[in-house]
Amino acid sequence: MANKKILVVPGDGIGKEVTAVGKLVLDAIAQKYHHQFSYDTALIGHVAIEATGTPLPDESLTKMKQSDAVLFGAVGHPKYDNDPTAKVRPEQGLLKMRKELGLYANIRPIKLFDELLDASSIKPEILKGADILFFRELTGDIYFGEKGRKNNGNTAFDVAEYSRYEIERIARKAFEAARTRRKKLCSVDKANVIETSRLWREVVQQVALDYPDVTVEHQFVDATAMLLIKEPTRFDVVVTANLFGDILTDEASQIAGSMGMLASASIGDGTGVYEPIHGSAHDITGKGVANPLASILSVALMLDISFGLTTESNAVIAAVDAVLKAGYRTRDIANSSTQAANIVGTEQMGQLVLAYLK
Amino acid sequence: MANKKILVVPGDGIGKEVTAVGKLVLDAIAQKYHHQFSYDTALIGHVAIEATGTPLPDESLTKMKQSDAVLFGAVGHPKYDNDPTAKVRPEQGLLKMRKELGLYANIRPIKLFDELLDASSIKPEILKGADILFFRELTGDIYFGEKGRKNNGNTAFDVAEYSRYEIERIARKAFEAARTRRKKLCSVDKANVIETSRLWREVVQQVALDYPDVTVEHQFVDATAMLLIKEPTRFDVVVTANLFGDILTDEASQIAGSMGMLASASIGDGTGVYEPIHGSAHDITGKGVANPLASILSVALMLDISFGLTTESNAVIAAVDAVLKAGYRTRDIANSSTQAANIVGTEQMGQLVLAYLK
Ligand SMILES: CC(C)[C@H](C(=O)O)[C@@H](O)C(=O)O
Ligand SMILES: CC(C)[C@H](C(=O)O)[C@@H](O)C(=O)O
Repeated sequence: MANKKILVVPGDGIGKEVTAVGKLVLDAIAQKYHHQFSYDTALIGHVAIEATGTPLPDESLTKMKQSDAVLFGAVGHPKYDNDPTAKVRPEQGLLKMRKELGLYANIRPIKLFDELLDASSIKPEILKGADILFFRELTGDIYFGEKGRKNNGNTAFDVAEYSRYEIERIARKAFEAARTRRKKLCSVDKANVIETSRLWREVVQQVALDYPDVTVEHQFVDATAMLLIKEPTRFDVVVTANLFGDILTDEASQIAGSMGMLASASIGDGTGVYEPIHGSAHDITGKGVANPLASILSVALMLDISFGLTTESNAVIAAVDAVLKAGYRTRDIANSSTQAANIVGTEQMGQLVLAYLK
Repeated sequence: MANKKILVVPGDGIGKEVTAVGKLVLDAIAQKYHHQFSYDTALIGHVAIEATGTPLPDESLTKMKQSDAVLFGAVGHPKYDNDPTAKVRPEQGLLKMRKELGLYANIRPIKLFDELLDASSIKPEILKGADILFFRELTGDIYFGEKGRKNNGNTAFDVAEYSRYEIERIARKAFEAARTRRKKLCSVDKANVIETSRLWREVVQQVALDYPDVTVEHQFVDATAMLLIKEPTRFDVVVTANLFGDILTDEASQIAGSMGMLASASIGDGTGVYEPIHGSAHDITGKGVANPLASILSVALMLDISFGLTTESNAVIAAVDAVLKAGYRTRDIANSSTQAANIVGTEQMGQLVLAYLK
């Protein structure tokens, strides 16, 4: 019997709706497998700014550090997007959380449920068999370097930075994962132009010597953006820097049919954070239509990676699979052949997964 | 009758093979429409390093400045890709050319020839009608900022930089183009994290005030990477920074069926440079299978943009269209329904286009 303290951090927009469903799934798992999960919640993002003036209050951070895992929603608000001069922004909360918790490895599995073969804009015959595990570095790069203005505000700059140490630790995680899979690793950079990418490639080449059983290729980020769509099945494990990982994993969400299906784990020195890769989606907030499956699959990742509960994790994935097999779809993964009666909202999708879990 | 000096700069790999075909098309146009095109050639990239020790010899640069237009191939070589510590690299020649010629606007039209609807990995019903014009900023960003190592070589850094002026001039070019099209402009940035992106968004918002007839949207680069595949028809003109443009246009090549179909124009203060967006492709170099259509379509862009020869430009595009309609394909754009006899090599594809031109 596991005894775990889980912090639910809904954040902004649909974050609240989807983490609520994720928590119900955690409850169901606890009941079925006789674990004890206790919960607390904390603020981050726009809702935290509104309540406290800061996007990640100390109290939230303390609670995160004291938890066994964090179930995270999303941050962001159109208000700040439309105002590039805003000094306090929801995303600062997210970045601070990643940095303070040392979450240097963001793991994003891109796997298509067979039933969703037709939900993608990519041809089914191209997608069939695609199964990619992304390792995105999460606490370095242009996200965290010095940034600012000069020349009376007329020039802006951002510094991208990577140390050998930062590259090596994420590379090792990716190589270890490749060993348990199809033993292929693709490292993505822009070493023909960027110095941080050249160091990246150098370090990955060195680390590769310790994993002779893993076949390594190096691709430029532009070529990778093309290859992901052209031939997604050529990839197994992909490891890349923070910014490239941000772009490529959003793109790769199309391989899984919808962004609403993709979960991620952010791990590192302490508490792990589990979250959908989708954003706060204010355009659909409060409408009850958001796809909760990414949050549910984030719970599956949490059970597996932070708690070592593989059986429980697989049970969650199997329940999602069963619901999809039964024909149920949220709007984002429905297509012309979906029966109208099978198109369900956030809560109903959650209830269906719970029913299959029990 | 136009009298033009055209510099052919093949560069590396398949650059030589495809620009040779492009030049034949220029010849055919000169003959048919009674223009005088004179030619010279110059070295760049790996071949220039081999011959002179530097990736862009002064002689090449001088010739470029004295030409009316440059027909460019590609640069790059696996030798440097595998050696991240190499100090002299082919790509430095390309970047220096862009900077020295002031080529701040890289224009990449993404348009699917109807006959290639099935060549793409994306579903035809998603692609139908897609027609995107990319404006990629080409002389700023992380490509040209300070870069180097510190901490005894254990940390690498790259500085991304943009001034208001640099953003404004590319934004205006993009808005002007939008006016002649469907009057929609999407500006892509990462303003929720990056300071150069915040300045980018600020400036584009200001420039937009001068173009009230153009509908503007701002998208984050990660969301754009997803939307390009999910819903390519939602885009008209897209304007973005150097690095994001590099990644997104390679990705968008899948909308056009193959990278082998995409041409680009780099323009700015002086001589314009016209080139395929594909690279040197050493894996297929010398095999005679490279698709020359991107180089031929680059010629079409040159005729139109640098020489104002619209009829001639349209004739080239029509000839390409006719060859595709007749069923001919290079390997990269063939699919299972292509008859084996219709799969042609580089030279033969060139001859077919020439036949339709005459
Ligand atoms: C919200 C934003 C700052 C964030 C990022 O860029 O990392 C998001 O896109 C993500 O991928 O988690
Ligand atoms: C070869 C490389 C330096 C170049 C770039 O990144 O600009 C290429 O990818 C391109 O898009 O023209």
